[in-house]
Amino acid sequence: MESRKIDLNADLGEGFGRWHLTEDEALLSVVTSANVACGFHAGDAVTMRAVCAWAAERGVRIGAQVSYRDLAGFGRRSMDVPADELAAEVAYQIGALRVFAEAAGSRVAYVKPHGALYNRAVHDDEQAGAVVSGVLLAGGGLPVLGLPGSRLHARAAEAGLPVVAEAFADRAYTARGTLVPRTEEGAVVSDGAAVVERAVTMATSGVVTAVSGEQVDVRARSLCLHGDTAGAVELARTVREALESAGVRVEPFA
Amino acid sequence: MESRKIDLNADLGEGFGRWHLTEDEALLSVVTSANVACGFHAGDAVTMRAVCAWAAERGVRIGAQVSYRDLAGFGRRSMDVPADELAAEVAYQIGALRVFAEAAGSRVAYVKPHGALYNRAVHDDEQAGAVVSGVLLAGGGLPVLGLPGSRLHARAAEAGLPVVAEAFADRAYTARGTLVPRTEEGAVVSDGAAVVERAVTMATSGVVTAVSGEQVDVRARSLCLHGDTAGAVELARTVREALESAGVRVEPFA
Amino acid sequence: MESRKIDLNADLGEGFGRWHLTEDEALLSVVTSANVACGFHAGDAVTMRAVCAWAAERGVRIGAQVSYRDLAGFGRRSMDVPADELAAEVAYQIGALRVFAEAAGSRVAYVKPHGALYNRAVHDDEQAGAVVSGVLLAGGGLPVLGLPGSRLHARAAEAGLPVVAEAFADRAYTARGTLVPRTEEGAVVSDGAAVVERAVTMATSGVVTAVSGEQVDVRARSLCLHGDTAGAVELARTVREALESAGVRVEPFA
Amino acid sequence: MESRKIDLNADLGEGFGRWHLTEDEALLSVVTSANVACGFHAGDAVTMRAVCAWAAERGVRIGAQVSYRDLAGFGRRSMDVPADELAAEVAYQIGALRVFAEAAGSRVAYVKPHGALYNRAVHDDEQAGAVVSGVLLAGGGLPVLGLPGSRLHARAAEAGLPVVAEAFADRAYTARGTLVPRTEEGAVVSDGAAVVERAVTMATSGVVTAVSGEQVDVRARSLCLHGDTAGAVELARTVREALESAGVRVEPFA
Repeated sequence: MESRKIDLNADLGEGFGRWHLTEDEALLSVVTSANVACGFHAGDAVTMRAVCAWAAERGVRIGAQVSYRDLAGFGRRSMDVPADELAAEVAYQIGALRVFAEAAGSRVAYVKPHGALYNRAVHDDEQAGAVVSGVLLAGGGLPVLGLPGSRLHARAAEAGLPVVAEAFADRAYTARGTLVPRTEEGAVVSDGAAVVERAVTMATSGVVTAVSGEQVDVRARSLCLHGDTAGAVELARTVREALESAGVRVEPFA
Repeated sequence: MESRKIDLNADLGEGFGRWHLTEDEALLSVVTSANVACGFHAGDAVTMRAVCAWAAERGVRIGAQVSYRDLAGFGRRSMDVPADELAAEVAYQIGALRVFAEAAGSRVAYVKPHGALYNRAVHDDEQAGAVVSGVLLAGGGLPVLGLPGSRLHARAAEAGLPVVAEAFADRAYTARGTLVPRTEEGAVVSDGAAVVERAVTMATSGVVTAVSGEQVDVRARSLCLHGDTAGAVELARTVREALESAGVRVEPFA
Repeated sequence: MESRKIDLNADLGEGFGRWHLTEDEALLSVVTSANVACGFHAGDAVTMRAVCAWAAERGVRIGAQVSYRDLAGFGRRSMDVPADELAAEVAYQIGALRVFAEAAGSRVAYVKPHGALYNRAVHDDEQAGAVVSGVLLAGGGLPVLGLPGSRLHARAAEAGLPVVAEAFADRAYTARGTLVPRTEEGAVVSDGAAVVERAVTMATSGVVTAVSGEQVDVRARSLCLHGDTAGAVELARTVREALESAGVRVEPFA
Repeated sequence: MESRKIDLNADLGEGFGRWHLTEDEALLSVVTSANVACGFHAGDAVTMRAVCAWAAERGVRIGAQVSYRDLAGFGRRSMDVPADELAAEVAYQIGALRVFAEAAGSRVAYVKPHGALYNRAVHDDEQAGAVVSGVLLAGGGLPVLGLPGSRLHARAAEAGLPVVAEAFADRAYTARGTLVPRTEEGAVVSDGAAVVERAVTMATSGVVTAVSGEQVDVRARSLCLHGDTAGAVELARTVREALESAGVRVEPFA
């Protein structure tokens, strides 16, 4: 029997100039994939360069965490950006990050939308298509990390791009396998032990217990860990150790 | 006897969103090198993409017109940006443009600083060095277009980067071969016929008449045409025709 | 019989730094109310100061043209801004403009949302309420200029703010009295003579001919003229002359 | 004998959107004057509103902490902003803050430049004059908080504005009474006990020991406390208690 493999991804480099948010160096010793902010919701050029260098040193994959152009709202406000603008802005961000990844001897290995763009590309076919157009424009056939069943994954697959499914150990799921919206009670699992246990079950059995009590399939090749909360690094480390103790190989997706 | 060759460069894509400034398509039928704004002083992603596509269709070289991060001031205000920030920001801009140049089947072929950064890199060794560091970080050994005798060219040459000298047919020169500052009377040559005549003399004899009356060496492989004034396109076309009539081959630098 | 009165309003000061859009001085000799951009979709501090000074000299009313924070999209992209953020941003913009209006010996006399915020506040009760909260926060009980029947006007009236109805002589109307969306064919009336005729009918009879042929009530105290197209100033002048010839008094709302 | 009085000021509201920097609520229970960031180097509208409300509740004075337009550099990079732009931008920031101060039942009571603008206005007569022009444009004859002997204070006094001198208990002074530049060794006094002792001596005797050992006059009506370092709130509280124990009345300047 083949052992299970899982990738751990986290959002990194989400400061801007004087402001810092994520503990980038510490998280880079835990995760296998770094979603690096590219300057539109967060991420200045100095930080992008540093995170890419640290990631390359540790063999962590570098992904472009592309976003709406919205520093004031941290990319968390849905925006009606016309498709051609959104595609060009996605490509712009990938290109900017690529310079730093390649200068560090690595490369941009995948793309993951951030915040409101991530959520909108689940259901909004036009914006999902625009993100995919942007990835195509940037060249290299980059894999798209996202929610299984999303419009984003459907459009990426249609365009011939690899898709990588992720799951969230700290988010509640509905019986249909979608995330409980953050506006609802209990959307976020705040108990650390529960997060660890869910991560292990997701990686070993490919399921999670929904809020309704059913077991639902999460089919994830990557787990997303959050890096912007107190204790985030410690929790991430505990999740990784629990996965390894359960015989899961923590390694980047191919 | 070998015929003289000259490159014609102009700043393009200097709008932002709803705002337009340069007549990009028209100028691209005249110049041989396009200094494309990369989003820091001007230039949104949609415009960058379009200008790169138009340039590639016409065989016009694409250069990264890198700038201070200053949309409100159009990059015309000198800024004390620390060297590591400036280097990273230069690389960021080159990377962003590269995506669109390569998607159009072309490539970023050179770098030229814009506005206040251009002027400061003439004299300020630290900022000149930071621009060069940014060009090196972006990889590919890109040539640096600028003023002969500038610190920028000195630092680029020390770093092993090709340097390309440019001259300005519509700017007055001092007896030492430097530009008369814009703050002084007569800094800009506004008479079209004079601009044409100076361009031809620069290209055929390599000299220009200084404000003091002396002939000074301008050693230029490229002439910079301005695209943001009324009649700019018409004047650019007239300059090109006059150069060709004088037996000068108008073609990009190697 | 009392003669009809109409206010003419236009968006002004919609450049940013190096970029210019509206012919501010010329339009200020035609309109009676100036919707001044406050820096979020357009409008830098120098321009705001100049437009306020010119408006004050000519006795033109100054209004705050408040917007989403979106320079790249010129405020034309709908955004899901949380209500508390939107209210505070509206107040911020009014306060910034007030300095320049008062320095010119005038005052901010009304508020009008711009672009996507204007359109959204027609139907979106939460954002309409947030705009009204921002106006209340700014103090002074400022009138709100907008579409009759909009949620914005409903919420403003509930809050005790004066509302002023406007109509668009260059936009097609549906039989229900709403604007034909710009995405539909014929949404904009581009024939100058038709615009003039519609303006006069709106001001004298309070009606407009809908796309379906019916006469619909437009109940407008103000007509909005567009200032960002070629020939805008000339058309505005023609509209004003036609109104005056028809016995309409062109003057600001009380 | 009259007892000594001192004002304590600190920079507050220096986050932006998702990013936080200063412990605003805690510091507002210690200081008597709050230099509130106005959106140009930091400070979003929601934060400005909240800080003004908290300050008003506690009877803390509200001042406009005006800056260069430079979010990416946190206003710490000197910029060659033309005088008319700088004046208008200073006025814009004061106006925006005024809305929130007045909505909270308070008012903007003074102006203090931030970061690079503060440092530049010490020596640069043109920029000092531009800041003063901006304060005049904003109306109300606002006092200018700054370094005694600075060009800023000279220009403010010439213009008839009140000037308020401040000193820095955590910065080293030269024998001429100027601050040791941050680029030099020992520029910042990091020992908490030394900071407290210097604050008390400044307030009670009006002097500080320079790096050369001499006692130099600091003539300060206000002491600036820094709020963006670890332990800042605790140190601020200790300074205040020590001042009060030494018989100094901690209260805002008139």
